Parts: sequence; structure tokens; C-alpha cells
Amino acid sequence: MPFFNFNAKNKLKIWDGINGSFFHWEQLTFGQIIVDEGTILPEHKHPHEQWTLLIEGELEFNVNGEVQILLPGMAAYIPPDTLHTGKAITQCKVIDCFMPVREDFVAMEKQ
Amino acid sequence: MPFFNFNAKNKLKIWDGINGSFFHWEQLTFGQIIVDEGTILPEHKHPHEQWTLLIEGELEFNVNGEVQILLPGMAAYIPPDTLHTGKAITQCKVIDCFMPVREDFVAMEKQ
Repeated sequence: MPFFNFNAKNKLKIWDGINGSFFHWEQLTFGQIIVDEGTILPEHKHPHEQWTLLIEGELEFNVNGEVQILLPGMAAYIPPDTLHTGKAITQCKVIDCFMPVREDFVAMEKQ
Repeated sequence: MPFFNFNAKNKLKIWDGINGSFFHWEQLTFGQIIVDEGTILPEHKHPHEQWTLLIEGELEFNVNGEVQILLPGMAAYIPPDTLHTGKAITQCKVIDCFMPVREDFVAMEKQ
């Protein structure tokens, strides 16, 4: 099926204040994620490469100690196994892309 | 460098009415593309997988004969070597992801 709709898919709660819907292909996962205003993304890392593209809002993002305020049209690349954290200055909508597939999210969707 | 900004990068003219800025990694290319109202994307195909995520606007998209009006939060997946075309019902902003890298765009950026 060539079309998919983030708005129509059940949302996963990733952390408090961070909810998203995800679609998976052979090699990667795309997500549309809403981060509530004031939410702090706990510092973490994972073996997946990640691209975070800001669609709406203002997001302070920290990749391995480098900090940038992301506005719409700005983005971050997180290499594998690299610590990252962030804070939503306003409510944010982001597109996240992960490679390889987030099998942990696939498992959560089956619960 | 973990951060990148589509707004600050020179735009490539892909077709009349279709202009975008692109960033490339080892395995994929991300682009932010503006499609002017009324623009028709010529039917074409390429060996790259493609994901087109609508951020703003209303885009009629056709993947191998299947047609969908894309609104923000909706997206299309184009398998390798699959014909696709579209028409911008309004001005649109889309995020495109290609795998593997669009070496043709890399070459255009060097011109």
C-alpha cells in the first residue's frame, strides 16, 4: 500500500509527554511525534541512526553535548550509540527517522 | 556536525515549480521541497526508494496508478523503479527521503 497516515494510526507513549505514531519498512522506521511543552527527553542512546526534523514548535536539542535550538526546517542527526536529550520549549511536532527499524516500537505496537 | 538546516541551504530546482534543499548521509538523502500551487510533477521513476511526507498544503499523489490526496501528516512510499506523479492543489511543503543517496542531486549541488 503506497500511502500511510500518521494521524490515523494509534499513538505510542514513548515517554511522559512524548507520543508518536510509527510506520516501519525493511530498513527504517518513520515516526510523527508530538512533544508536549516543557517535556524533557531523558538522555539516552540506541544503536539506531536517527534523524529528527522539526515540523512545528521550538525544541532545544542536545547531541553528545552539542546544543542547538531547533525551529521548523531544522534538524538533528544522531549517530548510532550517541547520547542525546532535549527539551520542548513549546509543544513540538517532529518527524523522526530511524535506521534500522525500531523493533522495540514494533513490539510495543503489538501489546 | 549533528545539526542541519534546510532553510539555510541553497535550493536546487528539480523541475519547474519544484525547488528543494537536500542533505546526504551514507545511505540516504533527506530533502525539504516546496512545490508551487498547480505544479504537476512529471511522471517518472528512479531506482531509489522514496518516502514523501506532506508537511503543508494539499498534494494529489499517484503511485503506479493509485491516487491519494495527501494532507499534512499523510505520506507516500514509492518502491524502487516505480512510476509516480502528482499535482500540487495548493503550495506544498514536503519532506522527501531517498535511499540510497540521490547522487544526481549531489552532482547538481556541485555545479
